[in-house]
Amino acid sequence: MIIIGEQINATRRRIASAIRARDAEAIGRAAAAQADAGADYLDLNGGDPSASAEVENVRWLAQVVQERTDVPLCIDSANPEAMAAGVELAERKPIVNSISLEDDRLKRCLPIVAERECSVVALCMADEGMPTGVDDRVARAGRLVEALTGAGKQPGEIIVDPCFVPVCTQPGTGADVCRAIRRIREEFPGVHVGGGLSNVSFGLPRRRLVNLAMAVAAVHAGMDAAIIDPCTPMMVPLVLAAEVVSGADEWCTSYVEAYREGALG
Amino acid sequence: MIIIGEQINATRRRIASAIRARDAEAIGRAAAAQADAGADYLDLNGGDPSASAEVENVRWLAQVVQERTDVPLCIDSANPEAMAAGVELAERKPIVNSISLEDDRLKRCLPIVAERECSVVALCMADEGMPTGVDDRVARAGRLVEALTGAGKQPGEIIVDPCFVPVCTQPGTGADVCRAIRRIREEFPGVHVGGGLSNVSFGLPRRRLVNLAMAVAAVHAGMDAAIIDPCTPMMVPLVLAAEVVSGADEWCTSYVEAYREGALG
Repeated sequence: MIIIGEQINATRRRIASAIRARDAEAIGRAAAAQADAGADYLDLNGGDPSASAEVENVRWLAQVVQERTDVPLCIDSANPEAMAAGVELAERKPIVNSISLEDDRLKRCLPIVAERECSVVALCMADEGMPTGVDDRVARAGRLVEALTGAGKQPGEIIVDPCFVPVCTQPGTGADVCRAIRRIREEFPGVHVGGGLSNVSFGLPRRRLVNLAMAVAAVHAGMDAAIIDPCTPMMVPLVLAAEVVSGADEWCTSYVEAYREGALG
Repeated sequence: MIIIGEQINATRRRIASAIRARDAEAIGRAAAAQADAGADYLDLNGGDPSASAEVENVRWLAQVVQERTDVPLCIDSANPEAMAAGVELAERKPIVNSISLEDDRLKRCLPIVAERECSVVALCMADEGMPTGVDDRVARAGRLVEALTGAGKQPGEIIVDPCFVPVCTQPGTGADVCRAIRRIREEFPGVHVGGGLSNVSFGLPRRRLVNLAMAVAAVHAGMDAAIIDPCTPMMVPLVLAAEVVSGADEWCTSYVEAYREGALG
């Protein structure tokens, strides 16, 4: 399981303020807390309405976070300049989050991820909008995998994000995402599947519960990468327990190791 | 979702002492706590090496519990006399837990559940032992459903228990159980599927985590009855959240209602 800590994101008010104030202490704390909670990568989103400011933000974040932890980075931007700048500064092989099938984004971002040593989140989003149902997700995954392997990426460097959508707006979307995860894992061997799942609980009370349930269901379906807040109580322990139940953690070795390290609470 | 509270079970040391001492206060507390936590039924297991003592235990438990709550009973015994005695005293339509394909048990218990107004847990256990894999579970479920409907039970009065087995002894058993749940729901319309799942975590540390993950995965696969400890922190909230994610709680109505009642914590 690849756990990508999602906390350092400029769409969160507290992080946006810290970035604006160049408060290295606050960013460093968020980095260290997620690393302690089991993050394998730290997502850095320096989003800003101004593209040049975003580049500067990502550079600053990459520097601050790498001073505080050894956890590799996940450069989170749709802006090719910020993406390139982040990857440039990464001391360990990073993940780029993300490319999609949106025409302009694919054209401008594919060369960046192709030329550099990095993994990449491939989001099943296209100019037509969000995917609908299972087949659409699997078909889009196929086009993304084709584009990325065609550009020289290895299957193991690709994390297909099936697009986690709010489950309250249309019954069955959570089940569809799980079915898509299972099929993508089956049809594209070696490719990882996962992504940011906190959208699923949009519009519902006690969102954390729905996110936890979605994480367990998705892991059971084959999700092996998750962009989550590892500091959410129970999140990492339940994801590890889900791998035990699904059989992904074949002899419970990761689970028991996490227990020995005190990571199960 | 049918939640059957499993706490009042003589295999638990504290409950065994309370039964032995006829400590109505202690049993009443366990009943009330589970009712408050969302139990739809309260399992009563008065197991005792002596069959006649078990009958007396079940009678006493049924009386004590029904004085304290209006929650219907789930009479938990493999002993036909105790089963009949418990059903006899039930003021509201109870569940009988359980019959199985074990020859002697089926012969002696089927008439009891056939003649009385009750639902029944049908355990996929046979004289050959535990079921193995998916097909075996589905085939056994078919034989149980056939025997019970042949004896006059309605599909909606049957809860097939696919046998939840420890996941640490053989990789993939948790996934097999989930696949079996899905197929039993598909192949035997109207029949409920569920059972006691705490066996799955046998031999592992922090068993509660594995039980929670199994519950979510099983609900996602179609489980709609669960013999659980509803007082386990997060258990009922996560089961309700899992129904949101799976689409079983079609418009999130049960989840939002539970939230309004303060049941999501």
